[in-house]
Amino acid sequence: MADEQQEKEERMKVNVFKIPQSSPDDISGLKDLIENQKILDPRYIAAIMGKTEGNGCVNDFTRGFAVATLKAYLRPLVGINTTEQIVFVMSGGTEGVLSPHMTVFTREPSVSSSASSSSGTTVSSVGLALGVLHTRDFRVEEIGTITMVQVVAKGVKEAMAKAGLADKDVHFVQIKCPLITAAARSSGSQGSSSITQDSYKSMAYSRAASALGVAMALGEIDAEQLTESDICSNHGLYSSVASASAGVELKNCEILVLGNSKHSDSDFVIGHSVMEHALDTAAVERAVASLPPPLNEGTHMNSRIVNVFCKAEADASGEVLGCRHTMMDDSDINHTRMARAVVGAVVASVVKDPMIYVSGGSEHQGPLGGGPIAVVSRR
Amino acid sequence: MADEQQEKEERMKVNVFKIPQSSPDDISGLKDLIENQKILDPRYIAAIMGKTEGNGCVNDFTRGFAVATLKAYLRPLVGINTTEQIVFVMSGGTEGVLSPHMTVFTREPSVSSSASSSSGTTVSSVGLALGVLHTRDFRVEEIGTITMVQVVAKGVKEAMAKAGLADKDVHFVQIKCPLITAAARSSGSQGSSSITQDSYKSMAYSRAASALGVAMALGEIDAEQLTESDICSNHGLYSSVASASAGVELKNCEILVLGNSKHSDSDFVIGHSVMEHALDTAAVERAVASLPPPLNEGTHMNSRIVNVFCKAEADASGEVLGCRHTMMDDSDINHTRMARAVVGAVVASVVKDPMIYVSGGSEHQGPLGGGPIAVVSRR
Amino acid sequence: MADEQQEKEERMKVNVFKIPQSSPDDISGLKDLIENQKILDPRYIAAIMGKTEGNGCVNDFTRGFAVATLKAYLRPLVGINTTEQIVFVMSGGTEGVLSPHMTVFTREPSVSSSASSSSGTTVSSVGLALGVLHTRDFRVEEIGTITMVQVVAKGVKEAMAKAGLADKDVHFVQIKCPLITAAARSSGSQGSSSITQDSYKSMAYSRAASALGVAMALGEIDAEQLTESDICSNHGLYSSVASASAGVELKNCEILVLGNSKHSDSDFVIGHSVMEHALDTAAVERAVASLPPPLNEGTHMNSRIVNVFCKAEADASGEVLGCRHTMMDDSDINHTRMARAVVGAVVASVVKDPMIYVSGGSEHQGPLGGGPIAVVSRR
Amino acid sequence: MADEQQEKEERMKVNVFKIPQSSPDDISGLKDLIENQKILDPRYIAAIMGKTEGNGCVNDFTRGFAVATLKAYLRPLVGINTTEQIVFVMSGGTEGVLSPHMTVFTREPSVSSSASSSSGTTVSSVGLALGVLHTRDFRVEEIGTITMVQVVAKGVKEAMAKAGLADKDVHFVQIKCPLITAAARSSGSQGSSSITQDSYKSMAYSRAASALGVAMALGEIDAEQLTESDICSNHGLYSSVASASAGVELKNCEILVLGNSKHSDSDFVIGHSVMEHALDTAAVERAVASLPPPLNEGTHMNSRIVNVFCKAEADASGEVLGCRHTMMDDSDINHTRMARAVVGAVVASVVKDPMIYVSGGSEHQGPLGGGPIAVVSRR
Repeated sequence: MADEQQEKEERMKVNVFKIPQSSPDDISGLKDLIENQKILDPRYIAAIMGKTEGNGCVNDFTRGFAVATLKAYLRPLVGINTTEQIVFVMSGGTEGVLSPHMTVFTREPSVSSSASSSSGTTVSSVGLALGVLHTRDFRVEEIGTITMVQVVAKGVKEAMAKAGLADKDVHFVQIKCPLITAAARSSGSQGSSSITQDSYKSMAYSRAASALGVAMALGEIDAEQLTESDICSNHGLYSSVASASAGVELKNCEILVLGNSKHSDSDFVIGHSVMEHALDTAAVERAVASLPPPLNEGTHMNSRIVNVFCKAEADASGEVLGCRHTMMDDSDINHTRMARAVVGAVVASVVKDPMIYVSGGSEHQGPLGGGPIAVVSRR
Repeated sequence: MADEQQEKEERMKVNVFKIPQSSPDDISGLKDLIENQKILDPRYIAAIMGKTEGNGCVNDFTRGFAVATLKAYLRPLVGINTTEQIVFVMSGGTEGVLSPHMTVFTREPSVSSSASSSSGTTVSSVGLALGVLHTRDFRVEEIGTITMVQVVAKGVKEAMAKAGLADKDVHFVQIKCPLITAAARSSGSQGSSSITQDSYKSMAYSRAASALGVAMALGEIDAEQLTESDICSNHGLYSSVASASAGVELKNCEILVLGNSKHSDSDFVIGHSVMEHALDTAAVERAVASLPPPLNEGTHMNSRIVNVFCKAEADASGEVLGCRHTMMDDSDINHTRMARAVVGAVVASVVKDPMIYVSGGSEHQGPLGGGPIAVVSRR
Repeated sequence: MADEQQEKEERMKVNVFKIPQSSPDDISGLKDLIENQKILDPRYIAAIMGKTEGNGCVNDFTRGFAVATLKAYLRPLVGINTTEQIVFVMSGGTEGVLSPHMTVFTREPSVSSSASSSSGTTVSSVGLALGVLHTRDFRVEEIGTITMVQVVAKGVKEAMAKAGLADKDVHFVQIKCPLITAAARSSGSQGSSSITQDSYKSMAYSRAASALGVAMALGEIDAEQLTESDICSNHGLYSSVASASAGVELKNCEILVLGNSKHSDSDFVIGHSVMEHALDTAAVERAVASLPPPLNEGTHMNSRIVNVFCKAEADASGEVLGCRHTMMDDSDINHTRMARAVVGAVVASVVKDPMIYVSGGSEHQGPLGGGPIAVVSRR
Repeated sequence: MADEQQEKEERMKVNVFKIPQSSPDDISGLKDLIENQKILDPRYIAAIMGKTEGNGCVNDFTRGFAVATLKAYLRPLVGINTTEQIVFVMSGGTEGVLSPHMTVFTREPSVSSSASSSSGTTVSSVGLALGVLHTRDFRVEEIGTITMVQVVAKGVKEAMAKAGLADKDVHFVQIKCPLITAAARSSGSQGSSSITQDSYKSMAYSRAASALGVAMALGEIDAEQLTESDICSNHGLYSSVASASAGVELKNCEILVLGNSKHSDSDFVIGHSVMEHALDTAAVERAVASLPPPLNEGTHMNSRIVNVFCKAEADASGEVLGCRHTMMDDSDINHTRMARAVVGAVVASVVKDPMIYVSGGSEHQGPLGGGPIAVVSRR
């Protein structure tokens, strides 16, 4: 198979750059890395994940502003086609201590591969590997259905092959997925058969089907037994590594798979765990503990952590640790905003860094009221 | 002096009841303790501190609704005069995981005092002690001034004497203070000389003067050197145990002093620390560690903790741990709301209990961006 | 028939008092009318409709605070039973220029009836008449169903009979209706069969069934052809005089019918119209024009108007007068809040009085995007 | 003088295009006019005024997104220099019925001038004229001061000369002005002497000084008697035609003057009035009545109106028409947002068009609680 061949022959190097932003259209940090420091080659950018300071809900234009600014900068540098191959995942909402920033992932062929692998001392060592994939466009009536689950599952498998990752090596799968706009419903002849007539709800269905697609690809759920009625309903079915984010700006799914591979010469590694609830600090510690052993044991862990990626949601049961919360009944502030504030603060207090990626809306992404958490660190 | 005499002769017993509430006017839990379980004698209620689920800002009527409901219930039970002696401190805002509840403090003469103190085995043991005091009413032009600081300082001293507490034994001082309403400014001849013409800002000035009054009483600041221009300005001056909350429903200050005393036979004790910033989990642990040693070492600490009382604020520097936050520039959500969500989540994640008391607006209550934190536990 | 007999024998006098409030628990104006001016006899209070300054959504406690305050004041004055017979309708949300207030409706036997009616000069004159009725409690699974429609329709008929009003004489029917709380769903064995599992949506279903009940009672819709699937769906079916408001504090429906009757010696009259959209100033003028002719033609109409009662909603089509609005997509401010701000401003600009009653959520109450509007004026 | 000479020799033609937008970055309507319909020549664009759907407060990025999108489109078409000469005024906030759109003003030399002016039949006719001017950059310590007032006044005079307008012919002056950011304060040596340390307040001071500059230029206030302490304080001093909007994206003031001139062959004219309060429908009618007489009397006025430009603010007295409003005390929704919803609804209900320009924050722009209102119509 072509992909396996690729694995055998090529080695990759993945780099991770976390860049603070002073506004959604602030690309000064990125420009500095590319143009002044010359340590980030824009031709190798595979994905950019950002936290922007909008409300993270329907009328959040900071996501679009950030992507438009990035594309306008990159197109003249690397061309339109290369720009379009990049996976842009902007997650709105930096409530509480969360600090606006972007994380740029690059992937390039490794030049030091043979030397490194032949040294003998690090035969068993692994590095961060990634693969990206754009699925086909979805028809309006497919969004949130079992068809979407299957197409995403297939796409995740392909992205894994590109990354040279087996099921057990995958630690985080980020998906940007479409939603059903009013315009889409009215224009298409099939609009009336879409899974919901509510744009906001369609975001949940789209995230749900995407997450179940990851679970199916990784064997976390039984593909045979999944039915359409499970979507957004049977919350016992979930992926421990999926993170999905819906946006109005695409019709297909964009997939980013992250894991550890012995074919990667990256200076970074990844680990993960699952938060059982919004205050689950032990999960943060488990995610850190799951990282491959550091090259230099003497370095303090927190100083090695580059970023944390996790999902947050207000527990729909109305309780956290047995105590009533008021997030679901607050008609002034959307509960997804408060969920990000809470999980962001909890995780930041453990890793002592508020510049982390916490995204809201975690249907089938971890258990109800919880969510996956991944940690990227230097080796 | 009468108070010293009182200390020598009388022993007190202080009880603490934490009661969940399903709404601001839910007193079913309190009624159950009084009427069914008969373990709370309403005649001994000294103070009730509550977290109510409003926005905690100007148009938060949940505080008034809670107090009105409590008074309507207690007046027929204990009489109007006794009800008026109770310190009611309702703090609005249960953002994030914070869970609406009230904490009832009772103080009664101890019947088991001599036996306990003569047993010899617990000579050095201490218990929770409290004192309450209502200051005189303030004139509009006094609120937020050095005069208010001095009156509060004197009041705190008196409440300490009632509690039999020396400076070093005080762990938390809660003050409910007045604000300057538009009506007050226009009615009084002195309205034009009030420290601010803005009702919302007057809350900050009133809290600030109250907190500095605590600091003055406890010798945390130099009474001689304090000037009026320090108020709301010289943030290097602060109390490590003050917690002030402004409200429209009073013209004086109501003071609750909490500490540990060897004259108390309470089953509860208190400790405290100071959070240096919103993510300062070490401060929570220091506050817990500062508690007097438990009677039974085998009990897990978290199971002994009854409640945590702390202040929260969004760091006005615009940064937390060196990273930009967006709380000060969010015109959709007041930064005090986000600050409570953050500190509430962080503290709750350490003690594994979201039913805690986190209050916003911490002028001169701990350092900028931080605040005092007190822990009440069973012995 | 008993009711007809009643009409023939008894004459009523209905009074209307509009009282400004400085807060949800401000009853100083009411007390003044009762205790000082002695022009309002509390024994005759039939209904109190209020605009309170909360958000008008789920976590609006100003409604409950207002009712609790009123009941605590009235119970000692008129007894518990009489207090419970009063219809309390608090509508939250005074967005924009809307001014918090309550409108007290009294109904008493007319002492001057025979004289007035025998004078000959005003034989054809009419006055404001009212009837109130409390329906039976609804089971959880009945709320929002055809059963509720039928029970409300019967209740409206009875309230009309009490008021001595025929179909054509009814100008406004206010209904306070229950909603389905999470607690109700989980406690009742029938919770699983309730029309929705979402508390907020149950408010819409309850208002919808109540409004259709009014429409059925008044022959505005064909009772035979109405099916359950029409509720909240077939918006072509609506009442031109219904105004429904859901609340957590009751399990039945409370009905207030207002109209003009020749059996009433009231100094007030009522008229109404229907707003076709949020900017329909002509409807306000039509409602005023529909009032019975004034006793004194010389008086300017606006000075005779006592209050306006109307419903508001953001047009779900996403357009007003063919232009896109952003109310449905605003995740920071609930669209019901903006709808009240808009309709409140428009109606207030016509009658030059911002102290009017504008309530949100108008399912089957007027056409989509519009709503009924009633005007009460002095004769 | 050059400008006067220009007036005598050249005639101008001003066009006005109102273009609906489906999002802040929607320029499809503009592109259609330029590229398909070819009725808008981008080289002649003098100013673009837009209503964007953000919150209109500090963290509103829709303004920047709109301007960035427009500039990115126009630069390749007309060059960077020409693009930079355009006055872009984006006003955030389309609360209530307000509909997002942009108004493009073009100014070109008139080719039909001599024929038209020599025809004799329309000697006295006037057309819309405009002038734009960019002032010098302001130092941080100048913003909101008398110096700024004077520089703006001089700039307005120059823009009037460019437009060929005398004082009495000016109907609207739109100014985009700078604010004082935290960064500006800390970077400049003079930051400590800035008029306020609060970014949000600096917006008010900047708007105030700009508006007073207009008033000074037009002789609405006595330049000799104005003192610095009048700014944001003496609300008796105001302009009846000024509209100022502060933004973070500039350091100077950009001025757009609109009026009627007999040297203009525009198919459009302008009129104006002043709203005394938020519900002043008579002012809308006065503004319409102030328009020059139409060429065709038979056309209904509303069908000739192209756009309305006005300012809105919540009356700081806390009352509108003698009734208390709650906008100033609402800690959930900024009062500027509610003010736009109110004035937008009122004006739209008169002209039957919600696609109008209503901007918040009207310091010295009309009387307290009111504001200028201008109407642009076809002749």
